[in-house]
Amino acid sequence: MNDFTYHNPTKVEFGKDKEKKIGLYIKEANIKKVLLVYGMGSIKKNGLYDNVIDSLNEHGISYEELDGVVSNPLLSRVNDGIKMAKEKNIEAILAVGGGSVADSAKAIAAGAVYDGDVWDFFTNKVQISQALPVFTVMTLGATASEMNGNSVVMNDETMQKYSIASVFVNPRVSVVNPQLMATVSKAYLAYSAVDIIAHSIEVYFTATDHPHFNSRIVESIIKTVIQTTEVLLENPNDYDARAEFAWVAIQALNGLTPAGTEGGNFPNHMIEHSLSALYNVAHGAGLAVVIPAWMKWHKNQNIKQYERFAKEIFNEDNADKGIELLESWFAKIGAPVTLESAKIPREGIKGLAINANGTANMWGMGEDYSVDTIIEILEKA
Amino acid sequence: MNDFTYHNPTKVEFGKDKEKKIGLYIKEANIKKVLLVYGMGSIKKNGLYDNVIDSLNEHGISYEELDGVVSNPLLSRVNDGIKMAKEKNIEAILAVGGGSVADSAKAIAAGAVYDGDVWDFFTNKVQISQALPVFTVMTLGATASEMNGNSVVMNDETMQKYSIASVFVNPRVSVVNPQLMATVSKAYLAYSAVDIIAHSIEVYFTATDHPHFNSRIVESIIKTVIQTTEVLLENPNDYDARAEFAWVAIQALNGLTPAGTEGGNFPNHMIEHSLSALYNVAHGAGLAVVIPAWMKWHKNQNIKQYERFAKEIFNEDNADKGIELLESWFAKIGAPVTLESAKIPREGIKGLAINANGTANMWGMGEDYSVDTIIEILEKA
Repeated sequence: MNDFTYHNPTKVEFGKDKEKKIGLYIKEANIKKVLLVYGMGSIKKNGLYDNVIDSLNEHGISYEELDGVVSNPLLSRVNDGIKMAKEKNIEAILAVGGGSVADSAKAIAAGAVYDGDVWDFFTNKVQISQALPVFTVMTLGATASEMNGNSVVMNDETMQKYSIASVFVNPRVSVVNPQLMATVSKAYLAYSAVDIIAHSIEVYFTATDHPHFNSRIVESIIKTVIQTTEVLLENPNDYDARAEFAWVAIQALNGLTPAGTEGGNFPNHMIEHSLSALYNVAHGAGLAVVIPAWMKWHKNQNIKQYERFAKEIFNEDNADKGIELLESWFAKIGAPVTLESAKIPREGIKGLAINANGTANMWGMGEDYSVDTIIEILEKA
Repeated sequence: MNDFTYHNPTKVEFGKDKEKKIGLYIKEANIKKVLLVYGMGSIKKNGLYDNVIDSLNEHGISYEELDGVVSNPLLSRVNDGIKMAKEKNIEAILAVGGGSVADSAKAIAAGAVYDGDVWDFFTNKVQISQALPVFTVMTLGATASEMNGNSVVMNDETMQKYSIASVFVNPRVSVVNPQLMATVSKAYLAYSAVDIIAHSIEVYFTATDHPHFNSRIVESIIKTVIQTTEVLLENPNDYDARAEFAWVAIQALNGLTPAGTEGGNFPNHMIEHSLSALYNVAHGAGLAVVIPAWMKWHKNQNIKQYERFAKEIFNEDNADKGIELLESWFAKIGAPVTLESAKIPREGIKGLAINANGTANMWGMGEDYSVDTIIEILEKA
């Protein structure tokens, strides 16, 4: 078991109607003015915006607004937010939306107290050493951004989709109300399920040493995702299934699953970021394309764990069968499992591989993931 | 799924030699003077005391000392610590030892910034609203005190063993170095295993609603405890088994397993506290006596979960068989499973029941656990 530091100070306020207390949570942190960050305005149609504003007003929190955050969130919009935060004496960032909104809020929070270019953090030029406090009200459970210090942002000038990881941008308080997630489309529910499974299996398969408990936690998450997704596709209003789905989404990427493992990394995410950067594919959809291909390519590097996966998740003895059943499950819930079904031309493979190799170098994985290797993987998709 | 708040800000520094950095961790929190709390001096024999003192000196942290903390820690010694903390301008409490030392440190931390009697917190007369920061270096993995806000202390005047739970006394930083735990006796390893299993099953069996994920986490913990305990009884120096044991001990009582469950409580702990209070039995030994008896008495209140337990842990279909196998496993690892083997006379049952019923009333469980009911349970032991 490897040495590690586990530190996740985020307070999760989980349950019905908790967004109506967001003003109180912010006030308890002695904050008087926030930048409210959100997406394309759906929160105005479903009443969430009004509930959040009412709560801010009730507790005397003033606010500025930054809307228009898109999925695969853009650096340009992050920079708009940083400018506003600096000019308007913002004390904290409040994200209301899904993972992209939370990720943007974190980047703004770090950039608002830094004199240079926030992209310096994403290119590892500078380490984050402080940030404004971040609060979130989540409308989607998938990325676990609500309980981690990760942020993925796309530089819309260079088409690089890079990430940061720092406990300084862990949300202070995250509101997770499963009721707010009940209106997500079936397609996005499927993409979210794939994303959660992706977070779970990356280190599970790539670690050179994984304690038994870590494997068991990952399997517990995956079993619960499969089970609750199937319930929700039938009945989107099943509160308990929605709530479990939201909670395991958080557990999949809040630091618990890799603690004590050795040598794990995130190759599927590394490759997928290029799919969403170059073809604007939804992150979970891109992962559904990459994962089965990557597993087929990777399985012999850790065959025992692939056999374990097949046994624990699908009660099958054969590694190939486990991969095949995961791929069919992705297809069954409506996620694309080939480049074609994600509308990515095969001629694009080389460009994707070059872009992904850039991320591989950034993440210290360039040696294992050359352009040719990534081509080999994507050709299986 | 029930609403809940999850907040565990403790930073766990897990791994080899990390106790040699304790001075650094304290310095990073801008603390200059600590009260060093420890037990009966074994840390002076094995070099841990010297390593801690060296690290404090290296980072310019001055210290006062409070030794003599015993298992089933005493209120009188806590009060000695509070007095010292107040008189000597102590800024933080550093616990070096097992659960009883950590629990004492937390009570001192809360009492040091309170004008009244610290016992007020234990009797729910007053809520904890602040505390000195707590740091720990653990020598035993069992209680999870290193990553929660719980403290159990025995009032040596009234013989009441009561507890507090507050995030204000969650340790700031806990050092968990499995190497420091390798010298624990086989008996205490067994008691620790029982304690971890007890923490896991209390809510698992008593909740009126338990999400699938919670059950899976609990089963993951129990399977890992059984597996690693058996390795450690054979080979106490197996680092990986020791490390996994220490980490799942933490997961069993850091707030993860009950999150989202409804209606759970801690009847085995409630009854056991009387065994250790009145007969000075080790906590884990007392639990090994209480748990099988309680399960036999309780099983029909939640038979499906007992069947699930039998299936998941022992691959058996029958609830009674699951209880029987857990009881034999306790016996096999050397824990007492009857009052006799714990050297508690059967004539003591009534006194134990009266004492435990006092705790039951304190914990809001008086209705389910009358004196007669507790007698009925203990008669099965």
